[in-house]
Parts: sequence; structure tokens; C-alpha cells
Amino acid sequence: MSNASVNTVVVYHSGYGHTQRMAQSVADGAGAELVAVDADGNVSEAGWAALNAADAIIMGSPTYMGTVSWQFKKFADASSKPWFSQAWKDKVFAGFTNSATMNGDKLSTLHYLFTLAMQHGGIWVGTGLMPSNSKAAQRNDINYVGSFSGAMAQSPSDAGAAEMLPGDLETARLFGARVAATAAKFKA
Amino acid sequence: MSNASVNTVVVYHSGYGHTQRMAQSVADGAGAELVAVDADGNVSEAGWAALNAADAIIMGSPTYMGTVSWQFKKFADASSKPWFSQAWKDKVFAGFTNSATMNGDKLSTLHYLFTLAMQHGGIWVGTGLMPSNSKAAQRNDINYVGSFSGAMAQSPSDAGAAEMLPGDLETARLFGARVAATAAKFKA
Amino acid sequence: MSNASVNTVVVYHSGYGHTQRMAQSVADGAGAELVAVDADGNVSEAGWAALNAADAIIMGSPTYMGTVSWQFKKFADASSKPWFSQAWKDKVFAGFTNSATMNGDKLSTLHYLFTLAMQHGGIWVGTGLMPSNSKAAQRNDINYVGSFSGAMAQSPSDAGAAEMLPGDLETARLFGARVAATAAKFKA
Amino acid sequence: MSNASVNTVVVYHSGYGHTQRMAQSVADGAGAELVAVDADGNVSEAGWAALNAADAIIMGSPTYMGTVSWQFKKFADASSKPWFSQAWKDKVFAGFTNSATMNGDKLSTLHYLFTLAMQHGGIWVGTGLMPSNSKAAQRNDINYVGSFSGAMAQSPSDAGAAEMLPGDLETARLFGARVAATAAKFKA
Repeated sequence: MSNASVNTVVVYHSGYGHTQRMAQSVADGAGAELVAVDADGNVSEAGWAALNAADAIIMGSPTYMGTVSWQFKKFADASSKPWFSQAWKDKVFAGFTNSATMNGDKLSTLHYLFTLAMQHGGIWVGTGLMPSNSKAAQRNDINYVGSFSGAMAQSPSDAGAAEMLPGDLETARLFGARVAATAAKFKA
Repeated sequence: MSNASVNTVVVYHSGYGHTQRMAQSVADGAGAELVAVDADGNVSEAGWAALNAADAIIMGSPTYMGTVSWQFKKFADASSKPWFSQAWKDKVFAGFTNSATMNGDKLSTLHYLFTLAMQHGGIWVGTGLMPSNSKAAQRNDINYVGSFSGAMAQSPSDAGAAEMLPGDLETARLFGARVAATAAKFKA
Repeated sequence: MSNASVNTVVVYHSGYGHTQRMAQSVADGAGAELVAVDADGNVSEAGWAALNAADAIIMGSPTYMGTVSWQFKKFADASSKPWFSQAWKDKVFAGFTNSATMNGDKLSTLHYLFTLAMQHGGIWVGTGLMPSNSKAAQRNDINYVGSFSGAMAQSPSDAGAAEMLPGDLETARLFGARVAATAAKFKA
Repeated sequence: MSNASVNTVVVYHSGYGHTQRMAQSVADGAGAELVAVDADGNVSEAGWAALNAADAIIMGSPTYMGTVSWQFKKFADASSKPWFSQAWKDKVFAGFTNSATMNGDKLSTLHYLFTLAMQHGGIWVGTGLMPSNSKAAQRNDINYVGSFSGAMAQSPSDAGAAEMLPGDLETARLFGARVAATAAKFKA
């Protein structure tokens, strides 16, 4: 699917590279531009411009100590500037996260990203993917981790970014495609 | 604004009439049909048919003991039938609630309604209304209670439905109009 | 550990028997009495009496459509009677849930049970168990599903209660023991 | 009430002084030491030592863009060090927040602080205060904002810290006293 006319941005923070790989998969699915939140919690001027121009903003962060990383939160706090004038109102928003544990409070992170998007007057899109949860389910099935509100990946605490599971990355790609397709319908 | 081409349904449970009044205001804003969850937690066949045919589903419940009433939850559990086939996928969803206390865990109710909508593969719309929160703010200002994720009303524990505040009801009406307008854009 | 002097009750609803098995494991760990919420959402008079007399109340429900079952919610709504007089204030509370999906919004259920406990003026205890999340982790490790706020079990959608995983049940047992031990310290 | 034998610490971040005043009230009620998270999200070595030695940790942050400030989150992320060895396990935890709006996602902040405390293996205490929510309720009543999970204050967007409402501060003081009393019972 080509969503050439839809301007989608993936804004993310990654501490050890896992969330960056996940962000790349989401961006591949969405045909999106990547905007990184750096290790100090800052986004470049070009990044802010891309966010301001976007039809859809997909937000990603690792789950650290129960919600988004402080760097991502610093970006969220800095977004009080566009919030004040509701400059991002009616954009499409979505969210994703990676952590080491199967459950591990990842839903807390997605609930926060949703809450942030609502403050911005956004429209929220989830995964639209049913979970793989029968006895025959395999770890690399689509949406095996099993999330509706946004995309989740799980990477063991001692696994490097290169070891991320293909099923989680394909789930992320499909999620990105869904967000872009939704934004395209909304923009039409 | 006419949203004649958009089919919007407000599905709600009301224990003492407050949420029903709020539902009516939301429906007035949205040009929506009302579908009641009855005192036993049931919805009529006609109600289910209306929900299945809807472009947008706006869900309302009082906040009882920290989330939706059991009657509303019974409806949510019964919606596992359309969920199983994802029959409601890509519908627009939104939510509202009333309770006696200013804060009073109303956000817990809205977070639940969001979670339910995500399981159905829906698109979520919030209030899109900035809160009235300066020193000059008045109780009947639009969005004085101050919610982004969905509409909130607050009615004192000893106030009847007839005493609901006009500001909360007008907030509900504007919220309904926003949901219908969003659904119209999405359907176009 | 004997917690003979601590009066602990596990109140739960189970739709298909999984949560009942989990409740039994929690009760085994806690030395607790079981109180069932029946298929109509009711608790017996003896059950209410046991709850009123308890030092600790451990609440369990399947996660259905994103939070506790309607039957459990009907119990929660009925608990507005002790709530009104804050009859359960300062009791120790905790919660657990089972669902088919690894993540699957189980945290939403635990967040709700916490919210309910806070309305009752309770003291909340979580699992106190670190997750098993390294590359060497096995499905039957303690807290493999990986929850802090309360105990979680995951049972595939087509697996009967007899097929529940021993690791999840042992996690539930340890969780029950922790709640009882905490209540014992609190009562001392 | 004297809780001389209980070691309670209030760790907080304040952007404009409101949360600091609230923290002072909580500390007055608890007989607690104050530990500040500074404008860069750092806590002094003495602060970390106080936290490690505490029987109870009460956490406070403004609600910014839907949850704790990035500075508080930086502290939370830095607490992964004691988390790793579960050094804070079985401490009593509690939380509070201030924001400009009556509702305004303050519950999201408290839910996050709870989630953090659970990762640390803590025991959570809420306000234990019924809300003032009848028609006769006054803004300066105890728990008028109406929270169970932790203490909330609301300060208009254009009100300085000196203008914080006495009812909110007294609510904070009573909340602090409750946490210390609970920790004392737990330690006994």
C-alpha cells in the first residue's frame, strides 16, 4: 500500500536500540519519517517542524520503570508549546513500546501515550490486530504479545537489538501500515 | 452542523437519570440515536442492530466504585460477539461519564471505555476541548471539570438529574458534535 | 509460614474455571477462605460476612473485554454498602487475573481492582516478585507473565482450566503467601 | 500524632512552587523529611541515602501533559538501581499531585506513581478520605477535589503557589499523617 499523500512521523526514544528497530519497522509500514528524541530528551528543530506538518504522529518509547522513558517525557513536556495553541489538534496519533517482560506494565506506557494524544486533541488508532493466543500460538505470530491499544514488543533483558523477534517487528510494521491507512482515510 | 450522512449511536447506562440526561445532550450534539442498557444490563435487538450499523459509537456510563456500572460492563461483555469477528472494526468510538465527585476516578472509567474500543479495533475521539482552569473560571464554563479523553460531568451526590449543570450538558453537546464531525470526515 | 492469626479472604469470579483454579492457588498460599461471586454476580450472606471480618481481601477476576467480568463488577457495585461507611478501611487488598493473551489488557483489570481498593480506604500489596525475562527464561518460571501490581496468569483461549500452567499457579501461590504475610505484619 | 519512630521521606519535583507547598503540607502531616528532585531531574546523594533508609516514601509531582514531570520521571528511571536489588521492597509508598484543572488527568499521574511503587515491591496507601461531594460542599472542604488513590490539589493556571487553597493543603496534611500512621502500624 502506498500512502504517498499522507505525512506520517514516528517520534521515538530508544535507550539501547530495541525501540529504534521497532520504530524503523513501524516507519516501514507507515511510509513514515523517523524523528529521534535524543539521549538528553531533545528533538531537533527539523524534527519539530516534521511533527507540526504531520498528518499522523506515531509515538514510541521503551517502558522504563512503568511508563515512557524520562527522555520521551521531556519531549512530551516540550510539546506543551503546540498543545497551548492546540496546533496538533485532529492529527492521528498512535503509540508503541518495547520492554523486557511479557506483561511488564507496557499497557501503562500505552495508556500514557493515549492520554498525551488526547491532551493534544488527537484521534487515536490502535493495532486493529487480534492476538495470537490459542494453544497452537507461536512466539513469532502476529500480535503474540497481544496488544490492542498500540503495538508491543518484548525483548529479553539480555538480548541485544539485533536479537529482536521477527514476529514483533512484523507486528510493528502492520501497525504502522494501519495508522497510515487510517490517516489516509481521515484526510481524504 | 448537519451530519445527516453519519450514523451515530449513543449507548449508555444510567442508574438515576443523570447519565441519561448527559447521553441526551451528547446525542443532540451528534445527531445520534440513543440506545439504552437497561437495569439488567441488557440491550434490545434493535439496539444491537443500531450499533452494528453505526459509523460511530459513543459509550456512556456513570462511574460507580471506580469504573463503569456493572450493567454497562454486562453490555461490554456481550459485545464479545461482534468483537470475535471484529464486526465493529474501524468504527469511531468515544466515551463519557458522570459522577458525584470532582475527580472521583472518572478517568478510570474513560480509560476503560478506551480499552474496550481498542479491543474492537476502533478509532477513538476525545473532547478536543481545552479546560477552563484560570482564576476567572466559572463552574458552568465549557469543560470546567476538565477532561480530554472523553466528556465528564459532575453532579453532587444529593442532586437529582434535573439539577445537572448546564455547563456540563453543553460540554457534552459539543463533545457529541465533535465525534459526529470526526466520523463524517472519516467516512467521506 | 503459618498465618493462622490472619483472616484472609479470596473473593473471585470465574467464568470457565481458570480463575477458580488461580483463586485456589492464591488461597493455598495465603491460608485464605474462598468466597465466590456467582454467575449472576451475587455473593452469599456468609460471603459478605467473611469479607467484613477479613484482615485482607484478595480479589480475582478474569479479564473480559478489557477489565473485570460484569459479575465481578456487580459485586464491586454492591460493595458500595460497606464503602458508604468505610467499613473495609485499612484492610489489606490485592488482586489477580487470568486471560488468554500474554498482555491482553490484564493490567487494566489490576488497575481497576486497585482503584476499587483505594475507594475502600485499603492498603494495596502487589506480587513483590521480579519477572523472569532473560533469554534463559522458561514459561513456567515464577512471574514469567511478568506483573508487579498483582498476579497474572495466561491460559490459551482453547485450553481448559485443567491445562493451566504450573508456573502461573505457583506464582499465584507465592503471591497469596505474600499478601497474608503483609497482613500479618500490619496486624501485629 | 507523633510518629517519631517512623522514618518517612517525601520526594517531589516542583516546577513553579505549588507541588513544593503541597509536599511541605504532606511532610508536616507525616513528620517527614523533604527530598527535592531538582530542575535537571537529579536527587542529591543525601537524598538517595534518605530514601534508602526510609520506612515510607511519599512521591509527589505536578501533572504535566498527562503524567509526572520529566524531572520526576528521571528520578524514577534512576531508581532502577535500588529496583534491581529490590532494595526498597516492603517500604510503604504513596503519591500526590497538583495541576491546574479540576480533573485534568491527575489520576493518570497517581496510577503511574502506584505502578512505580509496585515495581519496587512496595505497599501502597491512599488518602483514606471520603470526598466532599454534596450540594453543600465547599471548595475548601477536605478532599473536595475528590481522590482516593493519592492526594490531589488543584491550582488555577494563573495562580501562584502562594494562592494554593487551604483545603487542598489540609487534605495533603491529613494524607501525610495517614501514610505515616500506616507505616507505623506496619513497622510495629
